[in-house]
Amino acid sequence: MKISVLSIFPESFESFLATPVVKRAIEKGLAEIEIVDIREYAGGSFRHIDDSPFGGGPGMIMRCQPVLDALAAVRTEQSHTVMLSPKGCRYDQKCARRYAGMEHIVLLCGHYEGIDARVEPHFDEQLSLGDYILTGGELAAQVVIDSVVRLLKGALRDAATTDESHENGLLEYPQYTRPAVYEGQSVPQVLLNGDHKAIEDWRRTQALLATRANRPDLFAVYPLSEYEKELLAQADAT
Amino acid sequence: MKISVLSIFPESFESFLATPVVKRAIEKGLAEIEIVDIREYAGGSFRHIDDSPFGGGPGMIMRCQPVLDALAAVRTEQSHTVMLSPKGCRYDQKCARRYAGMEHIVLLCGHYEGIDARVEPHFDEQLSLGDYILTGGELAAQVVIDSVVRLLKGALRDAATTDESHENGLLEYPQYTRPAVYEGQSVPQVLLNGDHKAIEDWRRTQALLATRANRPDLFAVYPLSEYEKELLAQADAT
Repeated sequence: MKISVLSIFPESFESFLATPVVKRAIEKGLAEIEIVDIREYAGGSFRHIDDSPFGGGPGMIMRCQPVLDALAAVRTEQSHTVMLSPKGCRYDQKCARRYAGMEHIVLLCGHYEGIDARVEPHFDEQLSLGDYILTGGELAAQVVIDSVVRLLKGALRDAATTDESHENGLLEYPQYTRPAVYEGQSVPQVLLNGDHKAIEDWRRTQALLATRANRPDLFAVYPLSEYEKELLAQADAT
Repeated sequence: MKISVLSIFPESFESFLATPVVKRAIEKGLAEIEIVDIREYAGGSFRHIDDSPFGGGPGMIMRCQPVLDALAAVRTEQSHTVMLSPKGCRYDQKCARRYAGMEHIVLLCGHYEGIDARVEPHFDEQLSLGDYILTGGELAAQVVIDSVVRLLKGALRDAATTDESHENGLLEYPQYTRPAVYEGQSVPQVLLNGDHKAIEDWRRTQALLATRANRPDLFAVYPLSEYEKELLAQADAT
């Protein structure tokens, strides 16, 4: 797949593009990532990318023309175009899976106080990482790219993306590695005796209990199987 | 304030630390950001930071010892210690405000399949950016740092953090800048005639309508004032 990022700070992607999973995906040809400098499209008599807001107020607003010309330069019939914005819908793992199946996504990184609202109809979607404010969309774009690229077949060394938190609607069970006792804290006995059925039961129970305790919103919509209802009943009885 | 990050990929913070707002906050002495390489604490007879999970399964688990020794090296009585993890509570702007008032926060970036669960009791809090999976906690840490640092007094050139999406429980109103007409699309007339009361009414109405349409979850808990109820009633009547 191809990912095009429209940004006024292309240099802020340098370290990110060198991180192991992203770098490997690029080198293996699984993903092409193009960082487009919006400033290069700032034409007209001003040659600047921002201006003060109509109606007054603090901060600067990104102008239509550079953004839309940069978009036009990368957009094809196959492009899915996304504005990263705190006003958007909340990004989640389902969305990451959806993007991972696409041919081309374009991510627009906002900045300053905002972007001229007239660019909005030119994008398919507005997307927010969560209910917090970032200096710009660059980190949001990196989060989206990271979460999408790692889902591409062959991007991770071990195919291990289906057991994780949020993949099946539950938080992940606790994990432990050596030593079996660390500063007086022992690994749960069940993990040490090689009984695979018991290990699976324990892990599923722990995932259910963690989700119920920490994320009641997720637990409320999780479709419990009969097997899982029984595991929970057993855990609650003890 | 001071922010310490515990990571096995310290180099992935390089571009981020050079982004304008973060760089300025560091240079002005508003924030001290310390990136600690967990690998430097990987002692013992193995000298590695990860190992396979007890009970089987794919991936590698970060070991207790290097993580807890790195934590011990930076922790003070004033430290608030945070594990970045998809299992955590969801990060939001309220949390960013809370962190911005702290003296020292420590952010642990997870990696691989997870971290040995025995490190959890050593941290004050587990925090998640949202319901999606990242390759590691490094981007999550950058998001937290970016959103916190920009709230520090003096970090932004224009003090403009209170009118934004999520600061007052509403999404932001649309913004426009020159030209007044772009490819046939006009800026709303109200923004052009200098009537400040009318502009304020329009902006508040737009913020309310956008929140109601795009984020009914936020709208449901927003405490509408009498003034805002009237604005909405007027908008709904037209």
